[in-house]
Amino acid sequence: MSRHFEQAEGLCENVDAATEGFRYNHTMLRIKDPKVSLDFYTRVLGMRLVRRLDFDEMNFTLYFLGLMGDDEAARVPADESERTTWTFSRPAMLELTHNWGSENDPAVQYHNGNDQPQGFGHLAINVPDIYAACERFEQLGVEFVKRPDDGKMKGIAFIKDPDGYWIEVVQPDLMARIARGE
Amino acid sequence: MSRHFEQAEGLCENVDAATEGFRYNHTMLRIKDPKVSLDFYTRVLGMRLVRRLDFDEMNFTLYFLGLMGDDEAARVPADESERTTWTFSRPAMLELTHNWGSENDPAVQYHNGNDQPQGFGHLAINVPDIYAACERFEQLGVEFVKRPDDGKMKGIAFIKDPDGYWIEVVQPDLMARIARGE
Repeated sequence: MSRHFEQAEGLCENVDAATEGFRYNHTMLRIKDPKVSLDFYTRVLGMRLVRRLDFDEMNFTLYFLGLMGDDEAARVPADESERTTWTFSRPAMLELTHNWGSENDPAVQYHNGNDQPQGFGHLAINVPDIYAACERFEQLGVEFVKRPDDGKMKGIAFIKDPDGYWIEVVQPDLMARIARGE
Repeated sequence: MSRHFEQAEGLCENVDAATEGFRYNHTMLRIKDPKVSLDFYTRVLGMRLVRRLDFDEMNFTLYFLGLMGDDEAARVPADESERTTWTFSRPAMLELTHNWGSENDPAVQYHNGNDQPQGFGHLAINVPDIYAACERFEQLGVEFVKRPDDGKMKGIAFIKDPDGYWIEVVQPDLMARIARGE
């Protein structure tokens, strides 16, 4: 049996046992103003702040956020050290980096990777009902790059976070049709 | 009880029930050459290619990769439509976007977000033993930004993927000490 589920050049079928236990833990984005970004990620997207790490000597703070249900939240350790270990074990965390003072520095404007020069594209969240989710984002004044019915790919949306990073919004059970180009 | 586990300005404690079921599904990066990137992410990091979506009319291909154990891989649906839904439901997926022809175009060089202009910072993988993982990366010729014993934060490393994107490598049970600045 193939290790992968698709064909493509470059794929390695003989997995090195040394990669056992590797997991994709987090993605890091720099943010200008934590007050604004934390409001967006917790109020608008429903994330929880699991760990905050202040590095006083280096003048920066890291915020680790997770999007989870109450059941998972109930299992997050209360003890700080244990919660740090948990934070770096749990897949799909979002790390926001705040370099102190950027919120008051007009020169600081982070690059979203979709304007030139391109690189990073977006984060994506999956939601149970994309039309309900986007109607709510609209009411909350969230900026859209693409509304779900804009353009060719109906049922996929892109919104912007406060720094201008793109966040894709998808509804998993609609994606098979979209993937077939229908 | 607070919804969050830390204090910070901007945090929303009254979660909108409309965000129930939201999850952080994937992060997207543009890549120049899929053959080179798929080799890196599958052979060096141990990821699996779960879904490949070719958009012939728009001249691009999306590769969705996941870092998982055999137990989870055994539950990935064989049926293509079901696997698409699975791909967009499962947290911590990595989406690599290939715009056809970029691999032969010397002008295409993606921006890693850490050189100017800054924005996106890195992906991070957690591993059971960072020193063993980094010794293996070294033997495989992976480029390092920071080896685990370089600089002040011992026990954290950064490597580069083929496009120059940074990947942090952490060992969760070492992070509590590092977080305390020890």
